[in-house]
Amino acid sequence: MRVSRRKFLKETAVAGTAAAILPSTILATGRMSDRIRIGVIGTGLRGQGLIGLVLRRDDVEIPAICDIDERMLEMTLARFDEADRRSPKIYSAGEKDYLNLLDKENLDGVIITTPWRWHTPMAIAAMESGKHVGVEVPACLTVDECWNLVRMSEKTEKFCMILENVCYRRDVMAVLNMVREGLFGELLHCQGGYQHDLRRVKFNDGENPYGGGVEYGEKGFSEARWRTQHSVDRNGDLYPTHGGGPVAQMLDINRGNRFVHLTSTATQSRGLHQYIVAQAGPDHPNAKVKFKLGDIVTTVIKCAKGETVVLSHDTNSPRPYSLNFCVQGTRGLWMKDNNSIYIEGLSPEDHKWEPDEPYLKKYDHPLWKRFESKAAGAGHGGMDFFIVRAFLESIKRDVSPPLDVYDAASMSVISPLSEQSIANGSAPMKFPDFTRGKWKTNKPIFALNDVY
Amino acid sequence: MRVSRRKFLKETAVAGTAAAILPSTILATGRMSDRIRIGVIGTGLRGQGLIGLVLRRDDVEIPAICDIDERMLEMTLARFDEADRRSPKIYSAGEKDYLNLLDKENLDGVIITTPWRWHTPMAIAAMESGKHVGVEVPACLTVDECWNLVRMSEKTEKFCMILENVCYRRDVMAVLNMVREGLFGELLHCQGGYQHDLRRVKFNDGENPYGGGVEYGEKGFSEARWRTQHSVDRNGDLYPTHGGGPVAQMLDINRGNRFVHLTSTATQSRGLHQYIVAQAGPDHPNAKVKFKLGDIVTTVIKCAKGETVVLSHDTNSPRPYSLNFCVQGTRGLWMKDNNSIYIEGLSPEDHKWEPDEPYLKKYDHPLWKRFESKAAGAGHGGMDFFIVRAFLESIKRDVSPPLDVYDAASMSVISPLSEQSIANGSAPMKFPDFTRGKWKTNKPIFALNDVY
Repeated sequence: MRVSRRKFLKETAVAGTAAAILPSTILATGRMSDRIRIGVIGTGLRGQGLIGLVLRRDDVEIPAICDIDERMLEMTLARFDEADRRSPKIYSAGEKDYLNLLDKENLDGVIITTPWRWHTPMAIAAMESGKHVGVEVPACLTVDECWNLVRMSEKTEKFCMILENVCYRRDVMAVLNMVREGLFGELLHCQGGYQHDLRRVKFNDGENPYGGGVEYGEKGFSEARWRTQHSVDRNGDLYPTHGGGPVAQMLDINRGNRFVHLTSTATQSRGLHQYIVAQAGPDHPNAKVKFKLGDIVTTVIKCAKGETVVLSHDTNSPRPYSLNFCVQGTRGLWMKDNNSIYIEGLSPEDHKWEPDEPYLKKYDHPLWKRFESKAAGAGHGGMDFFIVRAFLESIKRDVSPPLDVYDAASMSVISPLSEQSIANGSAPMKFPDFTRGKWKTNKPIFALNDVY
Repeated sequence: MRVSRRKFLKETAVAGTAAAILPSTILATGRMSDRIRIGVIGTGLRGQGLIGLVLRRDDVEIPAICDIDERMLEMTLARFDEADRRSPKIYSAGEKDYLNLLDKENLDGVIITTPWRWHTPMAIAAMESGKHVGVEVPACLTVDECWNLVRMSEKTEKFCMILENVCYRRDVMAVLNMVREGLFGELLHCQGGYQHDLRRVKFNDGENPYGGGVEYGEKGFSEARWRTQHSVDRNGDLYPTHGGGPVAQMLDINRGNRFVHLTSTATQSRGLHQYIVAQAGPDHPNAKVKFKLGDIVTTVIKCAKGETVVLSHDTNSPRPYSLNFCVQGTRGLWMKDNNSIYIEGLSPEDHKWEPDEPYLKKYDHPLWKRFESKAAGAGHGGMDFFIVRAFLESIKRDVSPPLDVYDAASMSVISPLSEQSIANGSAPMKFPDFTRGKWKTNKPIFALNDVY
């Protein structure tokens, strides 16, 4: 099984115009696999969620999983029981046992849902062993890792899909549809971000995943075990893909456009320390920890076609959840935080917002129309259904995935560039061109039809 | 009459804590002028609006005005008639006749409401001739102009107040009150900006101030006559003070804090050209004009105490009006665009916005409480009443104005620094310290009481 970009492009040639949405039949190649075999490396809460979705399908097997956390593995096995599926083989003999899984198991692809620092090494090893990869966000932590992913995918012709689920959020897909229909005119500016009070994720009691204590690292449980250390060691936009990924699709990044440079600026760091003191008092050992991560990090990206993107990273402070979406073009704009839209010539009153809901309904994406009932109940408001489906269908149909290794690299590289910018007084940092010039002629690949 | 900062500070010493609001009596010096005399240079629509407010007061005379536009002068004289006030002497003999006004007239202060490029030269000349200055925004267009204003004010001991009316917007003042009461905790991040579809301001038919044609420059009328050329010649945040001024007060800029550096990034320029073509066709001569100004300019400022400020300049595109305000601290945040607030421990539901209205009422600023009925009917929702009052009362009471030459410089310098940043690929630009170190010990001066 190999990725045939040419075949994919040929079959979907009619989708060359941005607005086209194809009926599902056009994509059928007649060479679909009946059943595919998927391994899962990393069975924390996120991995368990995705496994649950995979196990809904009769045409996919999970013969092997890998983790080193006994409790998480137990919880995962319970998922197999619930789904009445055969228990997978377990690889849990240390941090490198995933290599044995890759070596010994006959798999079509692997899903990687481990702590961030493992994403790239595991994805590299998986491709090298002949498996397609679906990797959680961010796919890579350094510029070198991004390049390594790209090179390995090109060398092995195995794909590396970034599992950026927010690309499939219903409102985001409807707005993508509007962008492709030209409703906003020519795009000028987008906003996104990750504004999510993670204090009860970054700290817990070592038993429960959320809150109840101020422990992290070895004494923490679930994400607190590893994610919090990034806030100690790094100052930058640590989690740029939920905001940057969806707007990258709207802006045709890597397909007619690309991210050119960014600047990042961070506020002082207060929230995590204050939380520890408020919860556990000034004498708790963690009250002495210095967190490098500024509470709010603002990143401004310039695109080759001229557009700008503002991303906000805001995870240490009390605030309502938002991904900060705003999409603006020469004819109008959409803003999520006030659930409003304004389109010149369509909106009833000049200079006045109108509710976005009728537009979101009218431009509902064909994928959502088709799979609404199946997506209901899947994680994160249904988004997870689509990201898992896209990964599995790409393997089954032997086609390029809708989010590929270039997406993985260009979305994820925002973090290291952001860190470098902040370390250099907000100096502009250039994005590598991971496509090596192909962005000029590449055509859009994301969500062009109602298949995946 | 000279500015006595010491006197002002001594009288308001109890206001040293940020939260204090003084009753008006404390400020009475016993040396108030009964009547003051104000000249007005620039009698376009903005000047006429401010003149109308000055003429409401029996204790202020306007013995002289200056402009070179006959039609505007006529409209201005009608204002005097309407108010049943004696007609002023008119200086209209060419662009430099303002120097004669300054030379010949016995005035306590002048209001400068001319096209931007005249603000600094006129303010400099006015201070040099012994008059206090109230100057419209922006006060200066280059870094040198900013320094020149500062030096002249220091040398002459005449004040140069920037007439940044949005500092007095009712919701903004209530939020300032909340900031000073510590409701948001320690501030982390603010947003502001100028998101205003000015296409019908930048172009008109030469007869009416708004729309009806695509003329500007010599063929335009009112602001189109001069403002539009800035969009041809400059790429940067051309109008930063409506957003930056109010948040500067919240952040104690020049008084315990300062702007340290900024980056700016601009989108492509589309809106103005497209507007000309849509209104007048591709063959209109103005369809050939190249506009340098990017449609949306995003500026990120870093403050000495660590906070960040994002300013948006967005004047060429169809969109609802917004000043983009957002104020966020370690305890919560306010966002204007969704009229919402969230304060940890106060808001009824964790992670959920609540309407801002009860908070805006509860924290209504004493100035607004006291002058609500008088402000009603004044320009821009009442803000103009307060900015004019502040200017006049500062002269009458012989005290420092609430927005001084350091405010004028540090708010206005955002424009040239923004232009330089964009011209250099979003490189960070350092703010000059116009206070020469005094920001470390200066105390807040804006809106500490219910007087002005």
